[in-house]
Amino acid sequence: MQSGQTNLRKDTDYQQTLALDARQQTIIAQTPNLQQGTPEQMRATLRAYFLSTFDCYESLFDCLASDEGYYRKSISLRHPLIFYYGHTATFFVNKLLLARLIDQRVDQNFESIFAVGVDEMSWDDVNEAHYSWPSVAQVKVYRDRVRALVLEVIDTAPLALPIDWNNPWWAIIMGIEHERIHLETSSVLIRQHKVALVKKSPQWQALTQSAKAPSNQLLEVPAGRVVLSKGKSDPLYGWDNEYGQHQADISSFEASQYLVSNQEFLAFVEAGGYLNFHYWEQEGRDWLEFSQAQQPTFWVKKTQGWYLRLMTEEVPMHWDWPAEVNYHEAKAFCNWKKAETGLAVRLPSEDEWYRLCDHVGLNTAHPTTANYQLQLGASSCPVNLCQQGDFYDVVGNVWQWTETPIYPFDGFEVHTIYDDFTTPTFDERHNLIKGGSWISCGNETLYAARYAFRRHFFQHAGFRYVVSGDLKPVPSSHYETDKLMSEYAEFHYGDEYFGVVNFSKNLVDLAMSILGDREKVKALDLGCASGRATFELARHFDQVAGVDFSARFITQGVLLASGEMLRYTLAEEGDLVAYKARSLAELGLAATQHRVEFSQGDACNLKPQLTGFDFILAANLIDRLYKPAKFLGSIHERLNIGGVLMLASPYTWLEEHTPKEDWVGGFKKDGESFTTLDGLQAQLAKHFRLLHGPQEVPFVIRETKRKFQHSLSEVTFWERIL
Amino acid sequence: MQSGQTNLRKDTDYQQTLALDARQQTIIAQTPNLQQGTPEQMRATLRAYFLSTFDCYESLFDCLASDEGYYRKSISLRHPLIFYYGHTATFFVNKLLLARLIDQRVDQNFESIFAVGVDEMSWDDVNEAHYSWPSVAQVKVYRDRVRALVLEVIDTAPLALPIDWNNPWWAIIMGIEHERIHLETSSVLIRQHKVALVKKSPQWQALTQSAKAPSNQLLEVPAGRVVLSKGKSDPLYGWDNEYGQHQADISSFEASQYLVSNQEFLAFVEAGGYLNFHYWEQEGRDWLEFSQAQQPTFWVKKTQGWYLRLMTEEVPMHWDWPAEVNYHEAKAFCNWKKAETGLAVRLPSEDEWYRLCDHVGLNTAHPTTANYQLQLGASSCPVNLCQQGDFYDVVGNVWQWTETPIYPFDGFEVHTIYDDFTTPTFDERHNLIKGGSWISCGNETLYAARYAFRRHFFQHAGFRYVVSGDLKPVPSSHYETDKLMSEYAEFHYGDEYFGVVNFSKNLVDLAMSILGDREKVKALDLGCASGRATFELARHFDQVAGVDFSARFITQGVLLASGEMLRYTLAEEGDLVAYKARSLAELGLAATQHRVEFSQGDACNLKPQLTGFDFILAANLIDRLYKPAKFLGSIHERLNIGGVLMLASPYTWLEEHTPKEDWVGGFKKDGESFTTLDGLQAQLAKHFRLLHGPQEVPFVIRETKRKFQHSLSEVTFWERIL
Repeated sequence: MQSGQTNLRKDTDYQQTLALDARQQTIIAQTPNLQQGTPEQMRATLRAYFLSTFDCYESLFDCLASDEGYYRKSISLRHPLIFYYGHTATFFVNKLLLARLIDQRVDQNFESIFAVGVDEMSWDDVNEAHYSWPSVAQVKVYRDRVRALVLEVIDTAPLALPIDWNNPWWAIIMGIEHERIHLETSSVLIRQHKVALVKKSPQWQALTQSAKAPSNQLLEVPAGRVVLSKGKSDPLYGWDNEYGQHQADISSFEASQYLVSNQEFLAFVEAGGYLNFHYWEQEGRDWLEFSQAQQPTFWVKKTQGWYLRLMTEEVPMHWDWPAEVNYHEAKAFCNWKKAETGLAVRLPSEDEWYRLCDHVGLNTAHPTTANYQLQLGASSCPVNLCQQGDFYDVVGNVWQWTETPIYPFDGFEVHTIYDDFTTPTFDERHNLIKGGSWISCGNETLYAARYAFRRHFFQHAGFRYVVSGDLKPVPSSHYETDKLMSEYAEFHYGDEYFGVVNFSKNLVDLAMSILGDREKVKALDLGCASGRATFELARHFDQVAGVDFSARFITQGVLLASGEMLRYTLAEEGDLVAYKARSLAELGLAATQHRVEFSQGDACNLKPQLTGFDFILAANLIDRLYKPAKFLGSIHERLNIGGVLMLASPYTWLEEHTPKEDWVGGFKKDGESFTTLDGLQAQLAKHFRLLHGPQEVPFVIRETKRKFQHSLSEVTFWERIL
Repeated sequence: MQSGQTNLRKDTDYQQTLALDARQQTIIAQTPNLQQGTPEQMRATLRAYFLSTFDCYESLFDCLASDEGYYRKSISLRHPLIFYYGHTATFFVNKLLLARLIDQRVDQNFESIFAVGVDEMSWDDVNEAHYSWPSVAQVKVYRDRVRALVLEVIDTAPLALPIDWNNPWWAIIMGIEHERIHLETSSVLIRQHKVALVKKSPQWQALTQSAKAPSNQLLEVPAGRVVLSKGKSDPLYGWDNEYGQHQADISSFEASQYLVSNQEFLAFVEAGGYLNFHYWEQEGRDWLEFSQAQQPTFWVKKTQGWYLRLMTEEVPMHWDWPAEVNYHEAKAFCNWKKAETGLAVRLPSEDEWYRLCDHVGLNTAHPTTANYQLQLGASSCPVNLCQQGDFYDVVGNVWQWTETPIYPFDGFEVHTIYDDFTTPTFDERHNLIKGGSWISCGNETLYAARYAFRRHFFQHAGFRYVVSGDLKPVPSSHYETDKLMSEYAEFHYGDEYFGVVNFSKNLVDLAMSILGDREKVKALDLGCASGRATFELARHFDQVAGVDFSARFITQGVLLASGEMLRYTLAEEGDLVAYKARSLAELGLAATQHRVEFSQGDACNLKPQLTGFDFILAANLIDRLYKPAKFLGSIHERLNIGGVLMLASPYTWLEEHTPKEDWVGGFKKDGESFTTLDGLQAQLAKHFRLLHGPQEVPFVIRETKRKFQHSLSEVTFWERIL
């Protein structure tokens, strides 16, 4: 039945918007303001924005010479283009379903085939399942049905303005902006196809303008503060990673006036740059060994000399066009340049790119000229064509690699209907690219846009180099996904469940009520795990040491103490997770960060310098020690006389942690029940008196959205008397 | 220092009570009424009761010929007598500590050595650790110190009458009654010693009276009801197993007028009874093979004929004295007798012994004559000496084996300071002995007394046989100790924690509010586990089937449906446990027991007869199925049209239960989050409509005293429409 419908498409009236004329280019160029106008105006705007995008994307496939171009992979790591042809349509259906703008699928089978092949953000792990692709005509029919469906939604679905992050219509813009990303990435795949598989298309003509490359030079970018802050009230669509706050003070640095041209890059190639591992970072060496590259991927060496592969053709090298390379090649060039010049040449950080942007005024105004939004044509252009301030191509022409792995800003949260857009790239293996290319449209060309790719990947991307001091460390982007670590992050810093107040805070508050006006100089949080009680103690003590046997746990406290966000996933149901982040500031603990010190240590064998404490907390520790008697028998040595030891434990003795013969209690001794409290009294009697307790303090550890450990910790306070 | 004190003992005035004269025998004979008189009278009574017991016990050791008798084991399965010499004193210290009548130990080392060697109720698993026993003199000094301590407590501790189960003074009576038990068991150990190790003592003289044995005959015991009911308000001390209620209607039966005499037993021995496995039960055969016994253990074959071993001497056989044997020998005798006579000869049940007691009037009066409480001497006597009604020795002379393994009465609970007195014997391997022996005193001679021993063990015990029909099944005595089973018993039938109401009850109440006045004939509780919801449903439905994959779980529901108590241990801390029991009646569910039927079954492959239901509950089931799609795809076949399926689950998908490809939800499907609810909607859509929900219902599973699982189960109701 589906194939019978294929002939209809030429007759449908909306096909008339296919040709990309100047008016349409303007429509497609910019992502709309989502707060302006009436609902009817908004419907009209989105109708045009959708149609220009959807149809522009289809027209890109006119660059394929035949059906073979749809089914042959252009690179081994990604699906063939037939997948991407269907994928952008399926994406609309999926997101509209999640937003409840529609309530049923268009085609269950296609929507399974076209949903996920390769996560566009984690390129290099293609699932090698056998796909049985449908025909191009079948997919076109499917696209037409989706096109009609989206138009129907735009025309008829209830619409309450503004369209913001929480509005169901966000899904529509998301679908359009998603297709714009694929417009660009599919153009790269077409460019990576064998020339025989592609053909020229009148809508996708490359520029031809080329001359001798300019001589690059370093210009100063003065010091300044970069402030990035996109809120939910911003009128323009954004991907999750753009929201939140970030600021940085950037020292003055020098940056190359132009992007590195093919001419400039040639010197590196001719200097044997691809043969000299010395210039390459370790990951770059691995890539070089794997790829056996000897020049940039779009350079073609012919007997008559160097040619340049464009999207649909090979042309004699345009030496004044930007060199298009991956991060590793760009980085190797910088290292070579550094060696050649003795200058601290490297790629800019993301912050430095923003500083450059601000310096040339692009934070407040659009560029007067830029090779982006398909405004000049379907290719790069000379690096000295589009001037922006003293520099060229700060935005446009090709993307520019940075030194910065993508990381979330403070306040980052995922969008519920697309929770894996960015999070899988928070792995310090995806570097940010900035500025957009000739085909970047809509969100991609916004100042706030942040896209990141694996460092070995190719886009229409090149680079500008800078001469500057050391890089600031990259903010952490790691999400704690280990089950136990995540559970403890939530246990210490997360939400409260069943009305049970935060355990660490509760313990410290209780301790303060017992300690009264005793000396509060030094405290020790032994078995500090993720460290919350360490920070809570530092509200009251001048110095607090957090010690845990597990170096992994310590990292969470260290991260927070350094002012960073602690990010972790929360298990929801099955494999589904939520994303969460907390900072000390949110918990009112920012002032404590310089009074804590975390270290790895063994409570049964403490380092000698850990001594002279006024207070020691051992929360949920004793029933996890391999030899609790060693701890109980020596801990007085670390406390000042009159100092207080606070023990809290559910006494969950398990042989996997503590051999049964070393349990403090919880067994029959000489025929009678001998509790852990009995054992504590016996083992501590020599140096301590029981000051307060026992008292039970509840705690809750979240395992999934619907499963929790709910426990009671018995708390006792012991004063050192001897 | 301790040895330096040994010379003091002869001089202390309380040694004057040592000799057992007639007055003291009366004092020791009966356990005191704990509700009578003034506190000062009570102190005087307990002082005398304690002293007569403590000193009588010490005098028993005068029967040992030398120190060697203290240190050589009389039987391999138990400690040497030095242990028992110290043990009864240590027991006082331990229980007084637990009752907080004292606050420190007398001797830490001795109290470790003498606390537990062999649990007197589980004889055959001696810990073969190396003991380094103190000298007899050292132990005597220790006993003297304990004696003085107990007297001081009796004389000075605060005393509020009455002394009942919850009164700290209960520990004092417990110590005394405990020592009386050891008076008897130690006398057996002395009797089992080699003759060379013992000696006659003027205080412990055996009777010499003996003549030709009478000819035994069967007398009728008329039918009647046995009612046993000891409450906490009873004025006489009791062990935990005596409390609670039990009643039974006993058909008329015949019982032997006399205990089986040595003469009567000789016929069995001479008939080759010990050589013919045919007469022995399996467990008896194992014992026979192990022991190589050829006659009763206290019979001694000499060249001049059969002798009888008494406590301190061997005498020519007293043929008219009772044969003393273990259960296996008694049972084999009955089987032989049955074969010889063609009559249904066996041992009496505990209930039949009580019926006999009632028949001869011993439920309302003490016997006018009985060989017990050391009234006649330190040995058995002829079986035709003490007449009680038409019978002889219904109480006294030797204990009488019954067919009944000890079990708890309804209402049984352990005493907190001695929680392992009886519970370890609830294993269907310990049979009750009744009636007491010549040395039984105090609690042991009460009508309510219930002692049980391993069936292969020796006491001063023999038997009477009965001719009667089949034995009634023994009430269950098993305590569920398996961790998961116990947790579920508590989850379904136990207490509520954190204010979360019983999950099963909550679900059924919710179901009733949703079902309204729909048909309520047949309901199915699928994955019923311990069965609480099955019973709760049976409040409303005529027939309820409870089905679970685990036959072990089913046993709990089956047990309760049969009217029995469900007994289980609760993990407290480490290895410590509490004991718990619940019945349907306590939960107001007694009326439901005949409307439920439990069976083992697989929710993914149900038996064909399970159909035609108006309501099906699947609580916390789907995420434990190996193939939930099979269940969801076929469950409509078991429901009437218009019937309702109720699903409840925390959706805790785990690969150990369900392969990931079979999860209903909780994963990314075609790139999007696909929840279990999404999956349920997809899989049930064909035959069901969502009637109500989703709604979360909390539940709590107790793991230890301080550790709980606290979860939320998502509940949905689905009406079958097709």
